Amino acid sequence: MATLEDIAKALGVSKSTVSKALSGAKDVGSAMRQAVVEKAVEMGYSRVSRSSSLSRIALFITHNIEYSKPDDFGYDLVDGFRRAAEPAGYRVEIIPLSVKMQEECPYDTFMVRENYCGALHLGLTIQQDPWMKDFKTCKTPTVLYDNHVSANPNVTYIGTNNQEGMDLTVEYLKSLGHRKIGYLSYELHSYIYQRRYYAFMQAMLENGLSSDPEMVGSAPHVSRCLTEHLPRLLEAGCTAVVCSHDILAHSVMVHCQELGLRVPEDVSILGYDDIPLCRYTVPPLTTIRQDRINLGKSAFHALTSQMSNVSVSSLLLHAELIKRGSCGPARK
Amino acid sequence: MATLEDIAKALGVSKSTVSKALSGAKDVGSAMRQAVVEKAVEMGYSRVSRSSSLSRIALFITHNIEYSKPDDFGYDLVDGFRRAAEPAGYRVEIIPLSVKMQEECPYDTFMVRENYCGALHLGLTIQQDPWMKDFKTCKTPTVLYDNHVSANPNVTYIGTNNQEGMDLTVEYLKSLGHRKIGYLSYELHSYIYQRRYYAFMQAMLENGLSSDPEMVGSAPHVSRCLTEHLPRLLEAGCTAVVCSHDILAHSVMVHCQELGLRVPEDVSILGYDDIPLCRYTVPPLTTIRQDRINLGKSAFHALTSQMSNVSVSSLLLHAELIKRGSCGPARK
Repeated sequence: MATLEDIAKALGVSKSTVSKALSGAKDVGSAMRQAVVEKAVEMGYSRVSRSSSLSRIALFITHNIEYSKPDDFGYDLVDGFRRAAEPAGYRVEIIPLSVKMQEECPYDTFMVRENYCGALHLGLTIQQDPWMKDFKTCKTPTVLYDNHVSANPNVTYIGTNNQEGMDLTVEYLKSLGHRKIGYLSYELHSYIYQRRYYAFMQAMLENGLSSDPEMVGSAPHVSRCLTEHLPRLLEAGCTAVVCSHDILAHSVMVHCQELGLRVPEDVSILGYDDIPLCRYTVPPLTTIRQDRINLGKSAFHALTSQMSNVSVSSLLLHAELIKRGSCGPARK
Repeated sequence: MATLEDIAKALGVSKSTVSKALSGAKDVGSAMRQAVVEKAVEMGYSRVSRSSSLSRIALFITHNIEYSKPDDFGYDLVDGFRRAAEPAGYRVEIIPLSVKMQEECPYDTFMVRENYCGALHLGLTIQQDPWMKDFKTCKTPTVLYDNHVSANPNVTYIGTNNQEGMDLTVEYLKSLGHRKIGYLSYELHSYIYQRRYYAFMQAMLENGLSSDPEMVGSAPHVSRCLTEHLPRLLEAGCTAVVCSHDILAHSVMVHCQELGLRVPEDVSILGYDDIPLCRYTVPPLTTIRQDRINLGKSAFHALTSQMSNVSVSSLLLHAELIKRGSCGPARK
């Protein structure tokens, strides 16, 4: 764990120059500043030495997560995080994160240069975001919502227990008499859609139901789920369709209704997330709730745990089944 | 969520009688007290209504967990929990837990009658402890160390990430040239030994190594692991043996040495837990560390989360591989 002294010694400059460079003081030139930041990252200048003097937390949000309005998925996550962080004396700065930004600067370098003590990340995907690789070895206290990185003590995965969510879903459908249950997913490139898919399969197995490959489909666009997979599921006799997220479930519901099917009399539809929209669909959507305010609060707890050297690997909240009108007894 | 008023109304007594009965006041007779406790539990008198007025936490420890001396497995867990709970104003009361106690009184009834606001449990096993069933529906804020109960929002599982631990173990052995890796376990009746066994199998699979059933064994006693399984593993050509916990690993190591095998030249041995003993075995034991002080602290955080309605399903700390002398390159 490198200190300011170590960095100063390695560069042959004074400790106060290093300190000023890292705190962004104006009387240190940009070339010196860059040299200090790069050396600091190289030497693993890290959380303990940094976090004590810093109070700014970066909240990175990728373009696929909306958060500005109360009905947006990210709104409550951001709100919960702030509600926990701000009374504790931290300033939370929201940073819209592009792939370009990630390509231009390695993660630890960005965090040291910009003087953040830690970060929460919303919306990253394994295949698209260059920083996902950086997280395997980063020294910055980091919390990833719905993304998992193994064996880096500085990174925590926070989310909802997906296995529990799918267990509740399949048990509920089984109790309503459903046996042929289909599953539609957004493409399996992201950690969370992979987890939900495997959790669904596991839940089917544990409930003694067959999870036939012909009753499962995934596609990179909602419209392709509807055209490529849904007809096959319905033809195979599915009386219920579980979807990887609410937006997809809503589209599936509307599409089924356009095909002349009644929801839930002919087919039951379930979503995942409990976004505000679910209450207003016709019929209202049965789904698994992610408690986003408390996820935000727990993300802050996980981050402060990292900063005080309690190395949390994962913190998962309980899933909750929200029963609404889109599910009913299986048709005979 | 029943209140004092609800309970008073249901029993046809005054609210102050209910309040006194639940707080153990001496001027309420024992029959009335029992009636109030039973009605309270029946009506789901629960955490929010209780926790605000209470500050005593029960720390249940079964006989299989030693905790009185610094070298005991449970010592740091208890210490970490106290270090977090006591400055926050809670009193932690250690209760040695027997099967008889559990048979005599349902869990929620015990907790309401004895006026605890929540509990941490160490050492319970699925098959032996009657309260494990109670945890599926209990209303008391409850944290289980190394035990998992699904879908009860009032129960949190806390532990170390076993998958990460086994991933680190198998990757390390693979890097040392081991291909035939055996696994010995205490009997698979407890949640944690099941998890570690599956995690080992998964890690072997992901590292492209075959996890042959003849290289795996479990038994209810260390001695039976040694006599029934170890000879078979060695005959099958295992160059490394991973054990479900340190005590077993130590016995396996001594037994191998008695058979004339050198550790690690002929066979590498790995444990799990990093109990204090590991540093003093000959050679010192390579193992996966569970950070027990921080597990204790995190258990308190999980419990207070429950008490403030943040419903944590699981909180897992990072596993850490501690390399010592019991592992070396695979013999040719």
